Amino acid sequence: MKIVVLKFGGTSVADVPQIKNISLKVKKEVYLGNKVIVVVSAMAGVTNNLIDLVKRMSDTPPNSEYDVVLSTGEQVTSALLAIALHNLNIKARSWLGWQVPVTSNKSYSKAVIEEVKTGPLLEFFKKNQVAVVSGFQGLSGENRITTLGRGGSDTSAVAIAAAFSAERCDIYTDVDGVYTTDPRIVKSAKKLDLITYEEMLELASQGAKVLQTRSVALAMKYNVKLRVLSSFEDLPGTSIIKEGKNMEKSEISGIAHSLNEAKITLSGVPDRPGQAAEIFGALAKYSINVDMIVQSSSINHKATDITFTIPETDLLTAESTIKKIQKKINFEKFITETNVVKISVVGNAMRTQSGIAKTMFETLANNQINIHVISTSEIKISVLISSDYYELAMRSLHSAFGLDRK
Amino acid sequence: MKIVVLKFGGTSVADVPQIKNISLKVKKEVYLGNKVIVVVSAMAGVTNNLIDLVKRMSDTPPNSEYDVVLSTGEQVTSALLAIALHNLNIKARSWLGWQVPVTSNKSYSKAVIEEVKTGPLLEFFKKNQVAVVSGFQGLSGENRITTLGRGGSDTSAVAIAAAFSAERCDIYTDVDGVYTTDPRIVKSAKKLDLITYEEMLELASQGAKVLQTRSVALAMKYNVKLRVLSSFEDLPGTSIIKEGKNMEKSEISGIAHSLNEAKITLSGVPDRPGQAAEIFGALAKYSINVDMIVQSSSINHKATDITFTIPETDLLTAESTIKKIQKKINFEKFITETNVVKISVVGNAMRTQSGIAKTMFETLANNQINIHVISTSEIKISVLISSDYYELAMRSLHSAFGLDRK
Repeated sequence: MKIVVLKFGGTSVADVPQIKNISLKVKKEVYLGNKVIVVVSAMAGVTNNLIDLVKRMSDTPPNSEYDVVLSTGEQVTSALLAIALHNLNIKARSWLGWQVPVTSNKSYSKAVIEEVKTGPLLEFFKKNQVAVVSGFQGLSGENRITTLGRGGSDTSAVAIAAAFSAERCDIYTDVDGVYTTDPRIVKSAKKLDLITYEEMLELASQGAKVLQTRSVALAMKYNVKLRVLSSFEDLPGTSIIKEGKNMEKSEISGIAHSLNEAKITLSGVPDRPGQAAEIFGALAKYSINVDMIVQSSSINHKATDITFTIPETDLLTAESTIKKIQKKINFEKFITETNVVKISVVGNAMRTQSGIAKTMFETLANNQINIHVISTSEIKISVLISSDYYELAMRSLHSAFGLDRK
Repeated sequence: MKIVVLKFGGTSVADVPQIKNISLKVKKEVYLGNKVIVVVSAMAGVTNNLIDLVKRMSDTPPNSEYDVVLSTGEQVTSALLAIALHNLNIKARSWLGWQVPVTSNKSYSKAVIEEVKTGPLLEFFKKNQVAVVSGFQGLSGENRITTLGRGGSDTSAVAIAAAFSAERCDIYTDVDGVYTTDPRIVKSAKKLDLITYEEMLELASQGAKVLQTRSVALAMKYNVKLRVLSSFEDLPGTSIIKEGKNMEKSEISGIAHSLNEAKITLSGVPDRPGQAAEIFGALAKYSINVDMIVQSSSINHKATDITFTIPETDLLTAESTIKKIQKKINFEKFITETNVVKISVVGNAMRTQSGIAKTMFETLANNQINIHVISTSEIKISVLISSDYYELAMRSLHSAFGLDRK
C-alpha cells in the first residue's frame, strides 16, 4: 500500500472554492493509485477569530479549554474537504485528532505528539481511498483534545508521514517553494529546487516562515521525504533532502531574517563563576528562550558585560526578572534595545568552505552596517544589526553570495 | 451527591456577555451545594452558518461529515462556558459528547441516544463542581460524532438527567415558560405554572416550539423533573409533572398551531381493500410523515375520496410519489392545498369531561370558520382550517375555553 501525505495550510483551504480546488489535487493522487492522507489547517482567519472569542471571555483561559475551542477550526475543514471529495466520487472521510488517534502529552496549547497510531487508518484504507486528518490537534492521556501550538499542522503532517512510512509528504502553501531569502524584501530572490534538512532547519529557526521548525526537525529525524509547493500553481516546488545528493553549487543556500528580537546588555557584572548560570537560569524559569549570547572578556578580572537576545514578546517578563536578581548578582545596570534585526546566512557548504564569514562581515562593513552581536553554528552565521539597515543587509548579502536570480 | 441538570439554548448563550450571565446562574447552584451538569446549545446563529457552509460545498453531503461540522457549534460554547466558570473560581470543565460519552446509533444527523455513561462524570465530580456538556451530539459505535437532529440539546439534557437520576432538569430558554398558546398571536395568553407530560407532549408535537417532542417523551418515560424557565428573567417558569397532582382547573391546558401543513385529496379512489395501504406505503418509503387522514364513506361502494395532511416541506416529493402510483391505484385525480393551518386544543381533562369537542366546533362555526379535516387523540382535538382564519380561530378558542388572562 503506497501512502502519500498532503498537507494544506490555511490559505489553501480559505473558503469553499479553494477547498474544491484542492480536492482536485487529491483526486490526481488517488488516480495514480495511492492511498492519500490529507492533513488540513483551519480556514484562513478562523483560528484568529476563535482566539479573539476566547480572549473576550478571559485573559487567562485554561489551556485545555482554549484547545477545545481552537481545534474546531481544523475539524470543520477536514469535514468540508471530505464532502468535496465525495462530490468527486472518492471514498473519503474526516479523521479528527482523537479519532486517528494522534496521542500527545498533556501540555495543552503546546502539546508534543507522542504517537500516531496506524491501526484504524490502515483498516480504513482496506476499503477507502482518502483520510482527511485535522491537523494541529492531538489527544492527551486524559482523553481530552490538545493542540500543538501555532503552525502545528506541519508537524502533524510530518509525524503522520513518519508513522505510515509515507512515500512522501507534500506541504502545500501559498508560496511555490523555499526561496534563497524573503522575495518581498529581495526582488532577485530565487526558488531553491533542493535544500538539506539541516539548512531548512536553520532557515526555519532563523525566521523563514515557510515551514515550522519542529516539523523540519521531525522530518530529518525520521527521514521523511518532504516537499514544499504551491496549492495555486502547478510547479515542482522545493524538495528537502538528506545531505550528499547533488546540491546546488552556491556556498550558502539562504538568508533568513527575524524582526522579533530584543537585545539586553548587563554591564558591570562581577567576574566570578556561576553568574551566567544565575542569570539564564532565572530567565529559563519563565520559559524565555535566550538566543545569541556574548560575554566580553574581562580585562581586570573584576567585571564583565553580558549581552544576549530574546524574543521581543518576552521583553517585559525578562525585564522584571532581571530587576529581581539585580541585587543578588550585583551588576551595575542593564540596557534593552528592540530596534534590532537578526540576519542569518545558512549553508551546508560552510562545513567545508572557508571564507564565508569573511565575505559576510566585509559586505556589511562595505555598506557601513555595524554588527552588534555575532553567533554561529556549524552551517549558519547570524548577526544582530540595527533594524534601519536590514533590507540593505539582506540585498547586499544575497548579491555577495551569488544568490541573485540571473 | 445531588446532581442538577441545567440546559441553555442558543439565545441564552448568544455571545460572551450572555455566557457570563448564565455562568452566574450556574454559580448559584454550586453555592447551594449541588453538582451541576450544564448542557449547552450552539451560540444563536452559529448552527445556521455552519449549515450554510456545508450547503455551499454540496447539496448532498454525507450525514456523518455534516455532523462533524455542526457539532463544533456546541463544542465552542461548552469550552467558553467552562472558561467563564473558571473566572468565577468554580472547578469546571467542558465535556464533549464523545468524552462523556453519550453513545448513539449510527443514524447520523438524526441519531438516537443509546446510553449516557455515568462513570467518567461521577469520577470527575469527586473533585470538581461543574461539567459543561456539549448538547446535540453523541458518539456512534464507529467512534464518530453524531448529532441528534435540530433541537436535540433538549433531548441531551433530559437523557443526561435520567442517567444521573438528577434532582431536576431545568430548560432555560428565551421565554419564561409554557403558555396556553402563542402569546405573539393571542395577547391574552397566560403562562402555565404546571402542565402534565402528556399535555406537553401533545402541545410540542402539534407545533408549540418551547420544547422538543422527543425530549418530553423521554422525560415522561424516565420521570425526569422538568422545568422550562427564562434565562433572562428570574421567574419560576413552568413545571412539567405527572398527572394527578394539583392541576389547574381549565378544561384544556393549551392551544397549539402548525403552519407547516399541506393537504392532499385523492378523489375517485376505487373502493376495494388495500388501497390505503398502497398509498401510504408509497409515501412512507420516502419518509413522508402523514398526519391527519380522512376517508369519506363510499355510498355506491364504487369510489371514495381520501384526504390527508403532510408537512408542507414534503409536498414536492409526495406529489411525484402519488403521480407514480396513479395508474396502479386508478384514482380519478388529486388536489393539493397549502393554504391551511392545523389548530389543536390539548388537555388532560378531555379524558373525563365531555363537551370539549362541541365547544370547539361551535366556536369555530360561530366565527364562520370552515373545518377541512378533524383528528383526535385521547387528550387532543386537531382541526385543519384555512390559514386566513387561524389567528381568529386561536383567539376565539382561547376565550371559549376560559384561558384568557384575567
